[in-house]
Amino acid sequence: MKVYVSARLPEEALDLLRRHAEVVGAEGMAEAEAAIVFNITREELARMPKLKFIQVVTAGLDHLPWQDIPPHVLVAGNAGANADAVAEFAVAMALASLKRIVFYDRRMKAGDYGRSRPVPMLRGRKAAVLGLGEIGQRTARILAQLGAEVWGFSRRMREGPWRFTDSLEEALRGALVAVCALPLNRHTRGLVRYEHLASMDPEGVFVNVGRAEVVDREAALRILKERPGFTFASDVWWGRNDFARDSEIISLPNAVATPWVAGGYGSEEVWRRMGLEAVENFLRWARGEPPRNIADRSDYV
Amino acid sequence: MKVYVSARLPEEALDLLRRHAEVVGAEGMAEAEAAIVFNITREELARMPKLKFIQVVTAGLDHLPWQDIPPHVLVAGNAGANADAVAEFAVAMALASLKRIVFYDRRMKAGDYGRSRPVPMLRGRKAAVLGLGEIGQRTARILAQLGAEVWGFSRRMREGPWRFTDSLEEALRGALVAVCALPLNRHTRGLVRYEHLASMDPEGVFVNVGRAEVVDREAALRILKERPGFTFASDVWWGRNDFARDSEIISLPNAVATPWVAGGYGSEEVWRRMGLEAVENFLRWARGEPPRNIADRSDYV
Repeated sequence: MKVYVSARLPEEALDLLRRHAEVVGAEGMAEAEAAIVFNITREELARMPKLKFIQVVTAGLDHLPWQDIPPHVLVAGNAGANADAVAEFAVAMALASLKRIVFYDRRMKAGDYGRSRPVPMLRGRKAAVLGLGEIGQRTARILAQLGAEVWGFSRRMREGPWRFTDSLEEALRGALVAVCALPLNRHTRGLVRYEHLASMDPEGVFVNVGRAEVVDREAALRILKERPGFTFASDVWWGRNDFARDSEIISLPNAVATPWVAGGYGSEEVWRRMGLEAVENFLRWARGEPPRNIADRSDYV
Repeated sequence: MKVYVSARLPEEALDLLRRHAEVVGAEGMAEAEAAIVFNITREELARMPKLKFIQVVTAGLDHLPWQDIPPHVLVAGNAGANADAVAEFAVAMALASLKRIVFYDRRMKAGDYGRSRPVPMLRGRKAAVLGLGEIGQRTARILAQLGAEVWGFSRRMREGPWRFTDSLEEALRGALVAVCALPLNRHTRGLVRYEHLASMDPEGVFVNVGRAEVVDREAALRILKERPGFTFASDVWWGRNDFARDSEIISLPNAVATPWVAGGYGSEEVWRRMGLEAVENFLRWARGEPPRNIADRSDYV
């Protein structure tokens, strides 16, 4: 079987792939039945009449040209491959903000050594996890182990050490910490609005490690300006890789900002794992086994 | 029984105390058999001939005038009362540093949006916890739950989800993360030296939530200057409450600094709990039960 590969894959993953399939580039794409990609263009799709399966290396699938992907082509994402890394990062952002580490380090560096701000405890307090996929579930388990009273929000019921709710309002009301790990799709775009953020504890922390567009940009800006004690911590930005477009939010003192480094962009080790798991999932499909993370097309078009 | 109270105790703790003992100040100290204090002076001690028991409100006992405390007077600390808060803080400092949250937030705020530094994973990596008291044990459990391979260092063997060692060298060698939660006493003053810090992973993180003096100050300064990738994160300072005396270390880019806020100084809630637990421990002694956290005088004199 010929598989078109446009993603930069680690050597280890390519070796595994070559033992089971013929890897082709642009020259062989007309015969390719499958593709392993980071993203795919309308033009590439038009040149692959035999295409049946697209394995995407990233966890999120919101960047694909869904309108141009024929409905008979299966699309698989790569959720889980970076989940441990992103969950660690989410908890790090939540604790760095909640325990006022970022706040006090900035003050101390500026020569202000006062204890101007209380440090809340997480134990016993409400923490919301939005999205109970691989990243959300891992994050929720860590927060529960830290003693937080965790609420898990998702469209579909998932059991674990959290109180499940399919109501975003219920999940966020009064929460001291919230971590957003929702995928971006037509159900979640702009889902988190001002009133949701305003319903949280005024000294609370909202962390986004999913996709920026799940949160209404103006809502984040407004809450940060209105509530100096509230922290908005995010690894993802509305400007995607052009972070300067979000400099107004990033520069606010109660924003905590990182440049999309929680997962594969931040670590070669995570990137290697993602490449390997993408190839392994393609091989499941090639062997006739059910692949993981098959996208529901109706979430996107 | 008369108990001399010089510590500022929360109302709730004072109410409990008054139901079981007569609280006296300077005017009644000559008759006091016990004292509940933050610290005590030689002069106070000289005016309490009937003193048998000192309950200290803080966890650490290194600040007491040990030479002036008669050997027959029992001294109890308050370890445990702030342990959940301090363990949360220790993990927050470790993750904020290791996941490069503090690093990237500073960069992003300065308009530098590049991904200049990899973000390591904690899972599967070696983490050392120095001191297996209440704070150390809780910290070690959280790190183990996060998937780290935890080594616990203490003078006395303690079992838990860690590999125990009584060798500081073995605990720190190759560690990506280390958390110091040792008490300050004659065994631990200056214990952590340059060679210990230098034996850790060069991209590693050393967190101190115990007492500054356990770490050699010049060693911390040297490692920070020699290894830009190494982070020294500390809530405690050699200048005690005069943090400006440590501004040289605090101002280094790879130091993460907070002003002694992990426990009771950072939170009224934690302070209330500490007051209540101090009174409850005194009441154990007053009822003839064994009090907790009795100090071993030989650790200090």
